[in-house]
Amino acid sequence: MRALIYDGKLRLDPDHPRPTPGRGEALIRVRVAGICGTDLEIAKGYMGFRGVLGHEFVGAVEACEDASWVGRRVVGEINCECGACDLCRRGLGRHCPNRTVLGIVGRDGALGEYLTLPAANLHGVPDSIPDEEAVFTEPLAAALEILEQVHLRPTDRVVILGDGKLGLLAAQVLALTGCDLTTVGRHREKLSIVADRGLRVREADQGLSDLTGADVVVDCTGDPTGFAAARELVRPGGTLVLKSTFHGDQRVNLSSLVVDEVSLVGSRCGPFGPALRLLDRGEIAVRPLIADRFPLKEGLAAFQKAGERGALKVLLDIT
Amino acid sequence: MRALIYDGKLRLDPDHPRPTPGRGEALIRVRVAGICGTDLEIAKGYMGFRGVLGHEFVGAVEACEDASWVGRRVVGEINCECGACDLCRRGLGRHCPNRTVLGIVGRDGALGEYLTLPAANLHGVPDSIPDEEAVFTEPLAAALEILEQVHLRPTDRVVILGDGKLGLLAAQVLALTGCDLTTVGRHREKLSIVADRGLRVREADQGLSDLTGADVVVDCTGDPTGFAAARELVRPGGTLVLKSTFHGDQRVNLSSLVVDEVSLVGSRCGPFGPALRLLDRGEIAVRPLIADRFPLKEGLAAFQKAGERGALKVLLDIT
Repeated sequence: MRALIYDGKLRLDPDHPRPTPGRGEALIRVRVAGICGTDLEIAKGYMGFRGVLGHEFVGAVEACEDASWVGRRVVGEINCECGACDLCRRGLGRHCPNRTVLGIVGRDGALGEYLTLPAANLHGVPDSIPDEEAVFTEPLAAALEILEQVHLRPTDRVVILGDGKLGLLAAQVLALTGCDLTTVGRHREKLSIVADRGLRVREADQGLSDLTGADVVVDCTGDPTGFAAARELVRPGGTLVLKSTFHGDQRVNLSSLVVDEVSLVGSRCGPFGPALRLLDRGEIAVRPLIADRFPLKEGLAAFQKAGERGALKVLLDIT
Repeated sequence: MRALIYDGKLRLDPDHPRPTPGRGEALIRVRVAGICGTDLEIAKGYMGFRGVLGHEFVGAVEACEDASWVGRRVVGEINCECGACDLCRRGLGRHCPNRTVLGIVGRDGALGEYLTLPAANLHGVPDSIPDEEAVFTEPLAAALEILEQVHLRPTDRVVILGDGKLGLLAAQVLALTGCDLTTVGRHREKLSIVADRGLRVREADQGLSDLTGADVVVDCTGDPTGFAAARELVRPGGTLVLKSTFHGDQRVNLSSLVVDEVSLVGSRCGPFGPALRLLDRGEIAVRPLIADRFPLKEGLAAFQKAGERGALKVLLDIT
């Protein structure tokens, strides 16, 4: 099958072996896939991954032990647990130390014609959600994870830092709580995507001092400088949600967290069910986040486009 | 009045001016006070404080606009809010940026014959609680603050790092939830205080590897190395409570907090009401935490004793 792989170099493999589903797994023919910041990192060699890239997809089940899945259009959770370790037995399989992760750790991903995933990871996609929206389920779930972890009150003052893909999804999700939200970014045209939906936005170079005292600040900048900016804005006793990953350590004054009783909450992957419900109800505008769309055979061009500074979501039409 | 002051040097002032209560304040004759690690830091010049040291006390109200307080034995919350700023209006007066803090920021403390505090900060002490136990209300409240901030489940696996005063109080408080608790320390004789009450303890040099995967880890080490040890022990998705303050920044891998979805919770002062209720019911053994007891006139010797490595609580009999 055709697949976009990284084996020390990003390249289109015209004849990659089609995966064979293991016990309990489904074989899925990928329809549309998205390129994520993590994929760009992997393609620079950062995560030590080798194989087919990609973890954001919508596809159709071609084969599965559980025949009820066959023919269904699905999205899939990306963490595949071992099911046997202490964390799995405690219901923490998403953090299983032996897990494989679709297109990220030890498992071929979604930027090829076929992928396999455990049937337990699949979610059927309602007919109301077209492929180019369903492919946003995974990043939308990551935005929803904030609300899984933090009790956001409708009266809370909230600031989101970052107008990238995750920041714009998080803004739309958190606004549904009725909270007093400001989304901060550096790109007027990207901020306009949420401003057009009635959300308050702020260009970072206009100053943020009136936003201090926020109950909750979410760092979606993807940048080491985001933490310091977020720390400035969060009130004593408030919560700083960390969504950014980057390389290396950061200098943090832990004592000031104690004195100000600030909580830091690391936040990663989230729940697919609520993401599909919100997409089904048309609550989240994901189409404006699509920067471009390429066929799989132009995958290298798609990566180039996705890697441009400030680029939004690049989709690949796989089959 | 006689008072132990810091004015660039720790000294006993035999003729310090007696404080005059301001509007809404009570004049309190101090009976017993405790020396805390923060006092030792101040006496080294770290916090820029000048005046009468001390914030742990029990005393008797001698004068107050609200006459119902006069003659009552009291303890007092140490943060005095301005009442007018944004944070105070939001009910966050303990974090008021204009606050004074008894014996710590801009307000003479408890290691003198008299102190003043807003009547709103006072809590009457039940007769069942003798002075040498009531004086632990403030540090016990700081231990209870953990439960104000974190929902500790009875089934949680919890580790406390540190067998100092705060660690031993936190151990007794958290054990009341029924959680599966281990207290880790470096001093067998201090650990025995909680081991004697049926709590599980571990000497740090015996290894901690079987304690990994904890749902909640509380760092009470007061030491920069505590964070790394706590980070090792907390499970993905778990909570690391920070109780230690120390000087300078720490190198932290924030991305690993995101990937493992770990929460850090800075935790400082806590609620006096529950602390008094638990002392009243005899649930917390505080007397074994008393290392020594001095009259105020031997205050310098008391500080020397309190500053010895591994020393537990040193009390001063003030009047």
